[in-house]
Amino acid sequence: MSTDSATRETGTQFLPRFDDKGLLTAIALDSVSREVLMVAFMDAEALAKTRSSGLAHFHSRSRGKLWLKGETSGHFLRVEEIRVDCDQDALVMLVRPEGPACHTGATSCFYRRLVGDVLEPVPG
Amino acid sequence: MSTDSATRETGTQFLPRFDDKGLLTAIALDSVSREVLMVAFMDAEALAKTRSSGLAHFHSRSRGKLWLKGETSGHFLRVEEIRVDCDQDALVMLVRPEGPACHTGATSCFYRRLVGDVLEPVPG
Repeated sequence: MSTDSATRETGTQFLPRFDDKGLLTAIALDSVSREVLMVAFMDAEALAKTRSSGLAHFHSRSRGKLWLKGETSGHFLRVEEIRVDCDQDALVMLVRPEGPACHTGATSCFYRRLVGDVLEPVPG
Repeated sequence: MSTDSATRETGTQFLPRFDDKGLLTAIALDSVSREVLMVAFMDAEALAKTRSSGLAHFHSRSRGKLWLKGETSGHFLRVEEIRVDCDQDALVMLVRPEGPACHTGATSCFYRRLVGDVLEPVPG
């Protein structure tokens, strides 16, 4: 393991590792229900805005720009804690959602499960 | 919204949407503790192997190849359920881990949290 890896894995220094597109993976987890609400990507700008505002921001890969979650719906995700993984290329945010996290109106984007080859609603 | 999007979001058909590198995001969640254990990427091969074997497989971006989680450590992730998000580019797997999910020996890869600008251990 390189020194760089050791520093990233065991250190106290936040050294986010963006991929070749400048992105890291960011998971939003409801801080109360502990349900996974959504997953998206952050670039350095989205990460900085998330940290400074306390509201989850992402980088929209389809639109190629900064995306404040809830900017149109008002369903912001208030970030209470940010957890960082071993190699610092992924985050779990514990959030308090101000409405359904999914644009479909579902609480979580993960509202279906695979049963055989078919998608079925996740039992509530 | 295109018909394609509507079909993906509301339908019962599993239509995984791989990105321009042929990958989707896959989160492993402990089916008992509901803790996020790790997040990685799957290509079509990793997804097929995961579904056929019941053991989580990923595509290693650094090594550029199929990766059976636990292939060296024996710490396999037994997949009990696969959840799919609205636009079908991300999965949550409910898993039963056969050992620590993180190569560092930690139960979860997300063993640190950001406090100010410093990483601290997540209180157990």
